[in-house]
Amino acid sequence: MTATTEFSLIQKYFSYDERRDDVTLGVGDDCALLNPPHEKQLAVTVDTLVSGVHFPEATSPDDIAYKSLAVSLSDLAAMGAEPAWATLALTLPNSNEAWLEAFSKSFKKTLNDYGVQLVGGDTTQGPLSITVQLTGLVDAESVMRRDAAKAGDKIYVTGSLGDAALGLKLLDMHDFPDPVIRESCIKRLNRPLPRVEFAQKAVECCACAIDISDGLIADLGHILKASACGAKIYYDQLPTSKAFDKSSTHLNDLDYQQMLLAGGDDYELCLVASAENEAALFSFAESMDVLLTEVGLIDTSGELSVINTDGEPIELISSGYEHFAHE
Amino acid sequence: MTATTEFSLIQKYFSYDERRDDVTLGVGDDCALLNPPHEKQLAVTVDTLVSGVHFPEATSPDDIAYKSLAVSLSDLAAMGAEPAWATLALTLPNSNEAWLEAFSKSFKKTLNDYGVQLVGGDTTQGPLSITVQLTGLVDAESVMRRDAAKAGDKIYVTGSLGDAALGLKLLDMHDFPDPVIRESCIKRLNRPLPRVEFAQKAVECCACAIDISDGLIADLGHILKASACGAKIYYDQLPTSKAFDKSSTHLNDLDYQQMLLAGGDDYELCLVASAENEAALFSFAESMDVLLTEVGLIDTSGELSVINTDGEPIELISSGYEHFAHE
Repeated sequence: MTATTEFSLIQKYFSYDERRDDVTLGVGDDCALLNPPHEKQLAVTVDTLVSGVHFPEATSPDDIAYKSLAVSLSDLAAMGAEPAWATLALTLPNSNEAWLEAFSKSFKKTLNDYGVQLVGGDTTQGPLSITVQLTGLVDAESVMRRDAAKAGDKIYVTGSLGDAALGLKLLDMHDFPDPVIRESCIKRLNRPLPRVEFAQKAVECCACAIDISDGLIADLGHILKASACGAKIYYDQLPTSKAFDKSSTHLNDLDYQQMLLAGGDDYELCLVASAENEAALFSFAESMDVLLTEVGLIDTSGELSVINTDGEPIELISSGYEHFAHE
Repeated sequence: MTATTEFSLIQKYFSYDERRDDVTLGVGDDCALLNPPHEKQLAVTVDTLVSGVHFPEATSPDDIAYKSLAVSLSDLAAMGAEPAWATLALTLPNSNEAWLEAFSKSFKKTLNDYGVQLVGGDTTQGPLSITVQLTGLVDAESVMRRDAAKAGDKIYVTGSLGDAALGLKLLDMHDFPDPVIRESCIKRLNRPLPRVEFAQKAVECCACAIDISDGLIADLGHILKASACGAKIYYDQLPTSKAFDKSSTHLNDLDYQQMLLAGGDDYELCLVASAENEAALFSFAESMDVLLTEVGLIDTSGELSVINTDGEPIELISSGYEHFAHE
């Protein structure tokens, strides 16, 4: 791909009209020029999705575009930041116009839905991969960091767990008897909902948060490590969707424990807050129609254990998340 | 690559000690947290280098690391910005520790040389590619933009042109009779020198600038388009290195015109300034030991022509830059 072609590609598909007031110069010069508000800190995250590793090769361009933004939006949510600016580095095997048009349209819609302006990009020829960097704005005082959990704090999760991992299993089961369940879980895999708006409220009463991209155990583990704490997870309180629950009537050979505790790609938030903030947190969740569930307790044990209703530890089969290509 | 492995990789190879005062939180949380100075704008650029497209597969990891930063540093230079923060999205076919160590060491050294802190990263498994986003700081009043050229302004370039393109040709000529020339040009290809420091001075007297990554004609063309101007290039005044000049005694079948006018990868600056600022500009260049050459004039023709010493147009054989893989 010559640079001239590359430039035309960027111009044609990624010159969106939408403008934020804090963008002096958008796509088209050597650099974009941005004017961050004085009272805010910048929250910066970068994620790469590689075809065949982070999404199946057959994934539609609109789902790929959506997800490439959603995973980074979810990182901003984990800090409680307001999304502001994006850059896109898109590596494509060829300049398939239909693919580019579908990708561009979905990317633009997702940017608009979250108030983000695309301020820079690079298109290169090579095996399909998408790197998105997002910058958000956050108050220094209220930002949620991983190192702020304390013994006695409660652990919560938004939404339900395990659906995306189940969706991954169901992708190839074209003859699965309940297509509604199948579609519902595949949608959770391809179209995770970053909890951006809720997180901007949650910062007011949460000490720390992380988005569940690698599975609850692995991600909560990062908080525990950074905060030098331990925790207990109440296995029987982990929230599951109706689709997830009903699927087991058709599938008896799946490891549901693994999907719940170590299934990635749900992009729900795991939040840690002191008990006195619980009422306020649930009030925010209710007002925003977000399902919030208490699932555990931070302690001084230095370990992460998963317990049943009798307080007995459950033996864990797996604690890591595996991308589908390696399963 | 599981996410756990991925995390270990980032931690092990990219947890550098160096800290800028404006970085509240570096690598290791969902997002980095940054405190930009109030009086500055942010200049943001992103570039992807793909193995086999932007550099030959045999390129050493330390050259790849250097160049992945240099191309973005050069974009910051084109705006006159001071480099500040980087993110790195690294896609690797496997976790070759020797490769990672060499890459990491060179990446760190280059960051340090330019006062940049790495604030975020993502490592993923896939065909080798490197995406770097750099953010720089710039004064809103003096920033150099592509749309500010005016008829009567003079055109300058830093350094010499064509060496990187020649280096690319010489890569496979292992029996080239003058190894000093060969090494010198290959170094220009693998280790381009971004004109960051000079550019921060040049902003005081230049209207606009662009870095020459796609060849003088293509890149100057961007300025002309954005500024709605034309220009003349004085072919016989284009600066060449001694290595470039001497190489022709051994090579008679190479297209030197194409390398000079359309050879990319030199990452020199093309600057546009009004005539009254010429003395100041040359003074800065001299004080910083940067070779600066007047190579043309902005006019109202609406076209870009390359002329000889008699003022006659030279017929152009090619006007675009082609990555080596497509030649």
